Amino acid sequence: MGSKEKLEALIKDQGELVRKLKSAKESKEKINNEVAKLLELKSQLSCENAENQKFTLKTAKGTRDFSPQQMAIRESVFQKIISVFKRHGAETIDTPIFELKEVLTGKYGEDSKLIYDLKDQGGEILSLRYDLTVPFARYLAMNKITNIKRYHIAKVYRRDNPSITRGRYREFYQCDFDIAGAYDPMIPDAECVRVVQEILESLDIGPFVIKLNHRALLDGMFEACGVPPEKFRSICSAVDKLDKSPWEEVRKEMVEEKGLTDEVADKIGQYVQMSGNSELVEKLLADTSLSKVRAAVEGLEAMKLVLNYCDLLGVKGKAVFDLSLARGLDYYTGIIYEAVLLGETTVEDVAGSVGSIAGGGRYDNLVGMFDAKHKQVPCVGVSIGIERIFAVIEAKLLAGTSKVRTTEIEVYVASAQKNLLEERMKVCKELWDEGVKTEQSYKKNPKLLAQLQHCEEYGIPLAVILGESEIQKGVVKLRNVITRNEVEVPRAQLVEEIKKHLQPSYINGST
Amino acid sequence: MGSKEKLEALIKDQGELVRKLKSAKESKEKINNEVAKLLELKSQLSCENAENQKFTLKTAKGTRDFSPQQMAIRESVFQKIISVFKRHGAETIDTPIFELKEVLTGKYGEDSKLIYDLKDQGGEILSLRYDLTVPFARYLAMNKITNIKRYHIAKVYRRDNPSITRGRYREFYQCDFDIAGAYDPMIPDAECVRVVQEILESLDIGPFVIKLNHRALLDGMFEACGVPPEKFRSICSAVDKLDKSPWEEVRKEMVEEKGLTDEVADKIGQYVQMSGNSELVEKLLADTSLSKVRAAVEGLEAMKLVLNYCDLLGVKGKAVFDLSLARGLDYYTGIIYEAVLLGETTVEDVAGSVGSIAGGGRYDNLVGMFDAKHKQVPCVGVSIGIERIFAVIEAKLLAGTSKVRTTEIEVYVASAQKNLLEERMKVCKELWDEGVKTEQSYKKNPKLLAQLQHCEEYGIPLAVILGESEIQKGVVKLRNVITRNEVEVPRAQLVEEIKKHLQPSYINGST
Repeated sequence: MGSKEKLEALIKDQGELVRKLKSAKESKEKINNEVAKLLELKSQLSCENAENQKFTLKTAKGTRDFSPQQMAIRESVFQKIISVFKRHGAETIDTPIFELKEVLTGKYGEDSKLIYDLKDQGGEILSLRYDLTVPFARYLAMNKITNIKRYHIAKVYRRDNPSITRGRYREFYQCDFDIAGAYDPMIPDAECVRVVQEILESLDIGPFVIKLNHRALLDGMFEACGVPPEKFRSICSAVDKLDKSPWEEVRKEMVEEKGLTDEVADKIGQYVQMSGNSELVEKLLADTSLSKVRAAVEGLEAMKLVLNYCDLLGVKGKAVFDLSLARGLDYYTGIIYEAVLLGETTVEDVAGSVGSIAGGGRYDNLVGMFDAKHKQVPCVGVSIGIERIFAVIEAKLLAGTSKVRTTEIEVYVASAQKNLLEERMKVCKELWDEGVKTEQSYKKNPKLLAQLQHCEEYGIPLAVILGESEIQKGVVKLRNVITRNEVEVPRAQLVEEIKKHLQPSYINGST
Repeated sequence: MGSKEKLEALIKDQGELVRKLKSAKESKEKINNEVAKLLELKSQLSCENAENQKFTLKTAKGTRDFSPQQMAIRESVFQKIISVFKRHGAETIDTPIFELKEVLTGKYGEDSKLIYDLKDQGGEILSLRYDLTVPFARYLAMNKITNIKRYHIAKVYRRDNPSITRGRYREFYQCDFDIAGAYDPMIPDAECVRVVQEILESLDIGPFVIKLNHRALLDGMFEACGVPPEKFRSICSAVDKLDKSPWEEVRKEMVEEKGLTDEVADKIGQYVQMSGNSELVEKLLADTSLSKVRAAVEGLEAMKLVLNYCDLLGVKGKAVFDLSLARGLDYYTGIIYEAVLLGETTVEDVAGSVGSIAGGGRYDNLVGMFDAKHKQVPCVGVSIGIERIFAVIEAKLLAGTSKVRTTEIEVYVASAQKNLLEERMKVCKELWDEGVKTEQSYKKNPKLLAQLQHCEEYGIPLAVILGESEIQKGVVKLRNVITRNEVEVPRAQLVEEIKKHLQPSYINGST
């Protein structure tokens, strides 16, 4: 029996004793005496419980902290992506993490159940943002902005079933680039494709393609195949499964679950298994069924134009016209695209489970939903699947040998003997004054070995080593941490010498 | 009278008619007839109201969007601050925006009522983070980290009464730098003071001082004055008001509300009106009352040490020992500090209402609250009042004439005639390939004037101007947007020429 159980038994006995004394109407003094003992035992038990009670030390379900290493990777990826956005002239905005619930209502269909609501603590009813696109549309309508090219990198929230292995979290970053404004057809749309290409190339995460399709073409194709209009949506979501399931399964769903005839399903099957380039567009424009349907021709003409612009913008070979692409049709009104990593690289296993790493399209009606007069602001944009990209890059780094630096310290100020803290502080001050990234131990008398180990652990390229005898001679030692080579430098010229050593080429060796 | 008012008048009349019929006990049929008319009128009114009802197009109370201009200012401020943090070797981490509610419970005293809770949608009970310090402590305890130097810049949430004029929002950024680890006294503490100094100097927002005090000294001072220990806390929060109220008012509160004798209050008054440097420390160490109290001597010795280290680190003249500083004592266990803008600059009015712009101190017990065995990790840190700093800088920029650039575009590709879209695209492609920040109009045939106005509006330094006749000659025009000077450049050497023009000195003129 543990001490807790013993205590509980004692309390039970003592309680009974008190009750007995009370019912026997014993003297108040005697009763109080035993009650005091009972209270003492109870207080012991509550201490015992408190001792054993473990504080739940975890982050909320589906969320996580990021360590300095992870942050260093994230920041370098963000920098690369932002530099592409800036190369294309994008501004950035920010919106609050929560919106009035009614702003989000009716925008996400079935997925609305995944929205995080805030508790009603009096006042407005609020929800955490589910994506960055709806707040963007609300921002445009609210500020009557009719054209803007903006990027927004921020966290969004979905009460989805988290799957850590598949990189699905409840709090995750989105990374959006959108062009709003009434412009000529396919010009901003093609630039979005170019932006995706530049980003994926700059991240160097392996071969990829950017699949393109058009909403009007999908509708027109269904019409040409004889799908009744009320089934366009549900057949479309069946087509959307083609990236994971073979045609035979999707066909079965269309016929058995969604009630298409075999003939109609087979017609669809012929189309959705096609992918290619502008030659395919020409072929389909000549297709007797499609050419009769206005929406199909409209979609094909748009594809022709965007593929031509993509060629001019240097995206040839990466942009593929793919009739099976059917993503997010609730939302999109024109071109849609999706970038997919090709799984034949060193990160095959990760990429295999990673799939789509960017996607987007044209959504011309969303802003109007927020405007009292339903004034539209046409938009086209792309969302980079940043969490998936992090997963790929982290896996790549783990597989490799190179260490990620989490600080940018250039110089470590060390001492070889005791009682040199003040000297170290003076050197640090001089270096900070000159903008040199410098640190020292926070111990008064740290061991030299520990100091040098810190340099190696954090990849700090240079160490200043202060010693009594050197100080008397008016010099300090400057150590190259990688080569372990040491030189004596006059104390008065230390900062100057260090700056010479901190030429980019010199540092990069260890970065 | 509008249709709404007419309807309301009709409803009023009809209502009276119904009441009359009822009181006259008319036939049920007659009454029902008139009631039906009344209901019809009411339904017309509710339609009328619905037509006029506008969608609530706003952000949640106490929150706001940031425009590209505001974001450009924020990013430049963040960059300056981060570069100081990095100069001191700080790593960065990130934590989720919400925590299990129990993580926050019991950390903020009375202010706990300001915590935003999430709705219980099944599963864990969550709250939005109130600051970055508690999540940091949770992170250290959870990952058993015993030393780290980290910064964290992120949004926090408080259901406070928003005051836009005073820059108080419900969603706002915190910007924290903390050093965790068991080190020698005052070494990391002094570096925090240096970090604050570097940041405020690099932001160039006017003269400031950093006030320093020590918790042990405050306690010791109260003891020496004869304050009963149970009143230390409440007297301390009275002292905390000295930055806003004169001594006479604070004294009144101490005597009338908090029950000190006149004598005790006057003794406190002598001390808390003192401020100075290490000479003041020496004077107080010789003070007959204080020198008898162990905590006071301990606090004074610590002040002596930290002021000496501050001098060595070059903070002399900015760091002021101030006995009236009493901030956040629930939290802090050692040194406390607070930076205050001095209101004698061009931003006087803003700074006047701005006051404290950074603050912090040592908190050695917080991490232990999260550890099952109450293992302590001593911490010291500083929080930069970034929202107040933004307010000061925005006011400064509004007062000035310089325009904030919201993009970094270097070259605008324009056309002087129709049908040159494809030529523009080719030039853009070449420039993007070379990493030049380039944009063009998304219109097929934009007007030249509109294109040049765009360059001026966005501060784009260079414009390439394509024209039919130039293309035939194999040249393009390169225009300096500021000087309006144009040169002809061979098309084949365009990229090379542009790169020559984009020397840093050339661009900075317009940045």
